[in-house]
Amino acid sequence: MQVADLSVRRFAPEGLQKLNLFQTARFFADLYCLEPEQEQKPHAHEGADKVYIVLEGRARVRVGEEERDLGPNQAVLAPGGQPHGVRNPGPERLTLLVFMAPVPS
Amino acid sequence: MQVADLSVRRFAPEGLQKLNLFQTARFFADLYCLEPEQEQKPHAHEGADKVYIVLEGRARVRVGEEERDLGPNQAVLAPGGQPHGVRNPGPERLTLLVFMAPVPS
Repeated sequence: MQVADLSVRRFAPEGLQKLNLFQTARFFADLYCLEPEQEQKPHAHEGADKVYIVLEGRARVRVGEEERDLGPNQAVLAPGGQPHGVRNPGPERLTLLVFMAPVPS
Repeated sequence: MQVADLSVRRFAPEGLQKLNLFQTARFFADLYCLEPEQEQKPHAHEGADKVYIVLEGRARVRVGEEERDLGPNQAVLAPGGQPHGVRNPGPERLTLLVFMAPVPS
């Protein structure tokens, strides 16, 4: 049975760290760990949807033209083709659970 | 921006309650709320993978022939085609975050 631990963390001064939890032919699930001021720059994937879920800290999320701050227990959908990105405005560390389906090529 | 709240809950004596967070053409994300002794009986989906993530409580998860108890911050993959199910062995209420891709037809 393939079990993953969502309490693992890895932060680095160089930038956002991605920890893969599961990957199949159909989706991936990652943890993203961001120190204050680190970000995933806005980008888009045609034909793949992404979800960001805030586990700890605060996330400044952009989807399309909209920007919003989310906290723990909040999740946001970035539909395929829409530019999306996330930044940690601080002061805490930010950990996100991220799902994407299908896996972008 | 489509934002969902993972802190919502709905339990019912009739059985497992499903609360949809997001649904697209490519995946769904639900919360499953189970009182003690409630379950999702083992079943299989050809061509679709599922992830169960324990938010609160204890989950007795079955995937294939294997059975395991998981607690908060643990996640398990049920690959397409493999029988999988989950039961709340109690004594607490169980809440799961569930992802599935693609959406089974």
